[in-house]
Amino acid sequence: MAITGRNEERTGRIRLGMVGGGNDAFIGAVHRIASRIDDHYEFIAGALSSTPEKAIASGKALGLEEDRIYPDFKAMAVREGRLKSGIEAVSIVTPNHMHYPVAREFLKRGIHVICDKPLTGTLPEAKKLAKAARDSSALFVLTHNYTGYPMVRQAREMVAGGELGKIRLVHAEYPQDWLTDALEGTGQKQAGWRTDPARSGAGGCIGDIGTHAFNLACFVSGLTLDSLAADLTTFVEGRPLDDNAHVMLRFEGGARGMLWSSQVAPGNENALKLRVYGTKGGLEWAQEHPNHLWFTPFGEPKRLITRGGAGSGEAAGRVSRIPPGHPEGYLEGFANLYTEAARAILAARTGEAVGAEVVYPTAEDGLIGVAFVDACVRSSARNGAWVGLNA
Amino acid sequence: MAITGRNEERTGRIRLGMVGGGNDAFIGAVHRIASRIDDHYEFIAGALSSTPEKAIASGKALGLEEDRIYPDFKAMAVREGRLKSGIEAVSIVTPNHMHYPVAREFLKRGIHVICDKPLTGTLPEAKKLAKAARDSSALFVLTHNYTGYPMVRQAREMVAGGELGKIRLVHAEYPQDWLTDALEGTGQKQAGWRTDPARSGAGGCIGDIGTHAFNLACFVSGLTLDSLAADLTTFVEGRPLDDNAHVMLRFEGGARGMLWSSQVAPGNENALKLRVYGTKGGLEWAQEHPNHLWFTPFGEPKRLITRGGAGSGEAAGRVSRIPPGHPEGYLEGFANLYTEAARAILAARTGEAVGAEVVYPTAEDGLIGVAFVDACVRSSARNGAWVGLNA
Amino acid sequence: MAITGRNEERTGRIRLGMVGGGNDAFIGAVHRIASRIDDHYEFIAGALSSTPEKAIASGKALGLEEDRIYPDFKAMAVREGRLKSGIEAVSIVTPNHMHYPVAREFLKRGIHVICDKPLTGTLPEAKKLAKAARDSSALFVLTHNYTGYPMVRQAREMVAGGELGKIRLVHAEYPQDWLTDALEGTGQKQAGWRTDPARSGAGGCIGDIGTHAFNLACFVSGLTLDSLAADLTTFVEGRPLDDNAHVMLRFEGGARGMLWSSQVAPGNENALKLRVYGTKGGLEWAQEHPNHLWFTPFGEPKRLITRGGAGSGEAAGRVSRIPPGHPEGYLEGFANLYTEAARAILAARTGEAVGAEVVYPTAEDGLIGVAFVDACVRSSARNGAWVGLNA
Amino acid sequence: MAITGRNEERTGRIRLGMVGGGNDAFIGAVHRIASRIDDHYEFIAGALSSTPEKAIASGKALGLEEDRIYPDFKAMAVREGRLKSGIEAVSIVTPNHMHYPVAREFLKRGIHVICDKPLTGTLPEAKKLAKAARDSSALFVLTHNYTGYPMVRQAREMVAGGELGKIRLVHAEYPQDWLTDALEGTGQKQAGWRTDPARSGAGGCIGDIGTHAFNLACFVSGLTLDSLAADLTTFVEGRPLDDNAHVMLRFEGGARGMLWSSQVAPGNENALKLRVYGTKGGLEWAQEHPNHLWFTPFGEPKRLITRGGAGSGEAAGRVSRIPPGHPEGYLEGFANLYTEAARAILAARTGEAVGAEVVYPTAEDGLIGVAFVDACVRSSARNGAWVGLNA
Repeated sequence: MAITGRNEERTGRIRLGMVGGGNDAFIGAVHRIASRIDDHYEFIAGALSSTPEKAIASGKALGLEEDRIYPDFKAMAVREGRLKSGIEAVSIVTPNHMHYPVAREFLKRGIHVICDKPLTGTLPEAKKLAKAARDSSALFVLTHNYTGYPMVRQAREMVAGGELGKIRLVHAEYPQDWLTDALEGTGQKQAGWRTDPARSGAGGCIGDIGTHAFNLACFVSGLTLDSLAADLTTFVEGRPLDDNAHVMLRFEGGARGMLWSSQVAPGNENALKLRVYGTKGGLEWAQEHPNHLWFTPFGEPKRLITRGGAGSGEAAGRVSRIPPGHPEGYLEGFANLYTEAARAILAARTGEAVGAEVVYPTAEDGLIGVAFVDACVRSSARNGAWVGLNA
Repeated sequence: MAITGRNEERTGRIRLGMVGGGNDAFIGAVHRIASRIDDHYEFIAGALSSTPEKAIASGKALGLEEDRIYPDFKAMAVREGRLKSGIEAVSIVTPNHMHYPVAREFLKRGIHVICDKPLTGTLPEAKKLAKAARDSSALFVLTHNYTGYPMVRQAREMVAGGELGKIRLVHAEYPQDWLTDALEGTGQKQAGWRTDPARSGAGGCIGDIGTHAFNLACFVSGLTLDSLAADLTTFVEGRPLDDNAHVMLRFEGGARGMLWSSQVAPGNENALKLRVYGTKGGLEWAQEHPNHLWFTPFGEPKRLITRGGAGSGEAAGRVSRIPPGHPEGYLEGFANLYTEAARAILAARTGEAVGAEVVYPTAEDGLIGVAFVDACVRSSARNGAWVGLNA
Repeated sequence: MAITGRNEERTGRIRLGMVGGGNDAFIGAVHRIASRIDDHYEFIAGALSSTPEKAIASGKALGLEEDRIYPDFKAMAVREGRLKSGIEAVSIVTPNHMHYPVAREFLKRGIHVICDKPLTGTLPEAKKLAKAARDSSALFVLTHNYTGYPMVRQAREMVAGGELGKIRLVHAEYPQDWLTDALEGTGQKQAGWRTDPARSGAGGCIGDIGTHAFNLACFVSGLTLDSLAADLTTFVEGRPLDDNAHVMLRFEGGARGMLWSSQVAPGNENALKLRVYGTKGGLEWAQEHPNHLWFTPFGEPKRLITRGGAGSGEAAGRVSRIPPGHPEGYLEGFANLYTEAARAILAARTGEAVGAEVVYPTAEDGLIGVAFVDACVRSSARNGAWVGLNA
Repeated sequence: MAITGRNEERTGRIRLGMVGGGNDAFIGAVHRIASRIDDHYEFIAGALSSTPEKAIASGKALGLEEDRIYPDFKAMAVREGRLKSGIEAVSIVTPNHMHYPVAREFLKRGIHVICDKPLTGTLPEAKKLAKAARDSSALFVLTHNYTGYPMVRQAREMVAGGELGKIRLVHAEYPQDWLTDALEGTGQKQAGWRTDPARSGAGGCIGDIGTHAFNLACFVSGLTLDSLAADLTTFVEGRPLDDNAHVMLRFEGGARGMLWSSQVAPGNENALKLRVYGTKGGLEWAQEHPNHLWFTPFGEPKRLITRGGAGSGEAAGRVSRIPPGHPEGYLEGFANLYTEAARAILAARTGEAVGAEVVYPTAEDGLIGVAFVDACVRSSARNGAWVGLNA
């Protein structure tokens, strides 16, 4: 395998802004690190908080030029859209309910958007945002970061290449334990907005992490959901959103699956796991050991395919930076989406087409994710009846 | 931990017979080995096949005295019931549809029955067998062998002792891959009867191994099922029974769960796994590494409790034979049920009561297991509607 | 793979006696269980303790006939040697210093000996015992039990079959932690004799468990040791024997190796592990997960070979009892040596030859093991100089 | 644990140059990525190859300004040393034999040096470089990158805090398999210089990766080596340097250890592993799963400490960027050394002292590493005699 992931040619670094991600925000810093790893971006502007004072303080702390620090996203979109060397792309790392209003402003000005998942908190907004992306000349990239891991790309390539035969079963799970107690009652910021319907939307853990598991299941298996039956539960008293979700899945073409997401399962940190089984073989991948992919051709011994090692192919190689045996992880997975986006943005500058190997989640993928949450909520409200997606 | 499992006092070994388990039968040999490990039994009589010729040949091959080799179970029950030194207990290791007719004959003669799982192939038969067991002076022991593993006993003890707090979630899975292709079409005996409704009953993989997973979930969690919603599927064309089962569970008291059993998941041999999560902690156990139990008290590092090692208690110690670090396994788990049965049988000889620490699955447990399969089939037939158990 | 390990034909069960192994002894019970698993033996006589009173009490507790309970091994050898239906084989499960005197009495009377490891406590005794075995018409079987594991047989078969190419490296380790503190000072019986040179011999942990690791290394690799350089250490104050051993190995033909045994490594229960690397591939096996063998053909993905699963061959199959995915363990490994011995003993009854597939450690293997300990002690006494074996 | 690792305050980014690391070089790109992750550096100058043409082409490809691209390191040191905004620090990522001549030029001009390991190829050069570092006003940082992993910091903190008691045993191993065949004969660049004494020095695999294992052992245990006995071997015919090393270690104060490094062990990618055992507990860490640390307090269950999870402390927290459960890896470990260096360099700007929590390997550490290789070679040449370090 040729490792071809890194790309440091700095000629023409992309001018990047950010909305959200001020002091204390976790995911904003992740996006900034990811944008630097392959050196495709130059971070030059931001509206980094919903509070103007914090937005300005955060911008200063991060070393932005004073005139590129904005008190709010609207002002930023307007001015950057007019500047000759205004930002070409913006990262949106706000709570879910702001994704649509922020993205709309930039998309309509032709500024590319890199947006944290889920697409939006509600299905109507998701439809509007998907339409805004369709109508814009700019690109829209949704950071379903697990699709950026080399061995996830490898798994997808193996399924597409027929190495598993016809897919029969898809099992995805994403258990965590950090909300086992009522953490939101302590003022913890992350717990606060993630359990608040006004900022998160209709899904609690199904929206926050269930969408990751579902996106990953579809990304690797290549399947389209037909219907689902869901049982959402809230175990912690007084919490207004689900903290555990059990879902049975039926895919078009006959495959079946199960999905479990939980934030109340002690002993699980971020135990995202995907298992796919077909007529000819099975695959297993776990996010906490992301450089390993288990593959069993039916009737043969189980094999360990490692990132960059024997059996690892092109799709993994182009998003790898270092040789096998050295662990790459979460930040590199994120960086891979930023780099894919950079490839597409650089191509868009000149009107070039990008090859099919450039892969990133789009607004359409995000719409399906929000429709998935919506379907889970509807099914659960109807005592687990099977429902389809309204995407 | 005191290791007190082994008991070789041979005074008064229990006279044991067997129905089924002739040449080529896998589970019969397992039962015989299990009965010898702690030396509580003397195997002296058998009706080892449904074909008289094979029954006789098998009896000779196993060294039974000629007059204790029977051509059929009925003849055996009648004569052994009259002999002064007739068998005190019988192991039933036939296909499922014979469990009830065979057990009935021995139970009504006061001969203890040790019967392979599931209890029966159909719910009406299960109810009759449960009644026959209730009405008999003899003991009925169902070999849900996974309940015999030391670390399963340990897990049950920890849940009962409150170390997990109130239980919220129970996840059980039992995937295999041996029926990924139509093995039953090749004349393979095991595949043949397990995919045949006439001999297996209404459930395919849900009856064969799903019942193990369900039994284990209830045994460890101590919970009672309220209702379930099931999606049974047959992936291999022409197979008359399910080869994959997805089930969502609701327990009395509010706990929720998922259960997956499959015989078409390449890369899985006997990957039975149980995970239980409560308000105060979580437990994980996998049958393929049975001497290990993972325990996470919420907010503390995950701990590895090993059979006989630090943190392992009385319930595990009394079914352990060797020190920590040396693996005990499947045969020992089976032997533990035989030894528990021996303790109960020896006590019954003298009318003594046995202590609460003597634990084995009963006909009532088996009835619940068959009712579980029945409920899965009913739910699946109604497109996954929630149904209760008719036990 | 055909699973052909079990053999229950009881015609002609072998009459077995035991020396040592009374109440509270761990390894005696293990030998008795192992002898019962495949039903080749009938345990009928014993001198179960060095104290006549305990010997008699233990014999009664185990249900021996009164006239087959002996106060000492000499009386037992004399009488059993004369009885028409005297024992055909004896298990010796005493501390090391008694192996030679006991074995000699039975060997010279033509009674087969199954003896616990190491062969003896000292090299001169080992040479005498090896000679006694050579001079006797009876068989001598040394229970280096790890050679009885199916996947160890599999590994040996793969090496012999050239699947690893020419062997370059052999790494064996056997760390434990139970003697981290001065347990022998508490009166604990196992710790007492194992740290006592009078009963254990010249080696402490190198004799107790280092010999297991060394035997396993040779058994699988098929290599013969040329020389070694050892660094034995006693970490617990006042302990007269080594509790940790570091050894570098040079084999005939150029292969090199390392061996580590320890009883003071917290977190290790019985972490015996073997790794063998050749020009074409590598193998890894760990006793705590004995049903798994890792095999990497150089330049290909690592493969998991499971007991009875795909890739597992004849040598493993003939010592397996149950299908893949169900764990077999320590007792079954022990039982496999008893069954191999039974095959040889039954053949010896009629003068038949046994096939090359019947494999068990002999007195010669035991002599090499004791010579290994002796060499380690000599090398360590000379500050780690390279020394050869005086076998 | 507060996660405090990331630091993006860009005011005053450090001006960085690089020697070596042109097109096709693996480790140069790693250093550049590492320098960008926390945004402390601005890469502005380079002499990126020993061939002027390649040096210039590589500089252009990486987007350096034309007048900061140098044909050789000497010209770069001279001019950058004079420029008002010349580089403040230089990364040296050449083959080993160039480390000293390059570093000397920058150190004597007061430019901080960040140098790849090992310090040099030979002991005399190592001593000269250590002296040059001592004599310079500039900092010298050696990228023993494994010391940058959060859980390695955690392990070191636990040992220092007495949680293992007095250390008795240190086991370090670093097996690889990429040189199992004579890869250097194919023109592969990495294999070429690593097996060439002129460019690598006196040690082959012991110098390339054995030094990593040794550095890690000392870093975590806090011990100082007293003497060692080594057995270096070359398995691949015609290779002038060792490709396998077995070493026994004696530390000051009585602890013992073993070290194994190999490049001919099929199935091992970069299987660096460290195990440390003391009177009160044991620790185990494996580089391929770097976010996990196993800790066993003697007599208690083994515990899994995860990066950022329960039980993880300050030393790990300050070099972590993301929450527990998300894997950080190799690049982040490297970045942590760059960030530690940045903290020291920024403090040096103003003459501030840095706290004891700022930890990075120095030239003295590097000197010990080269002395270790030298001692291994000397011991092996004397048939494994015990020798001390000439550091």
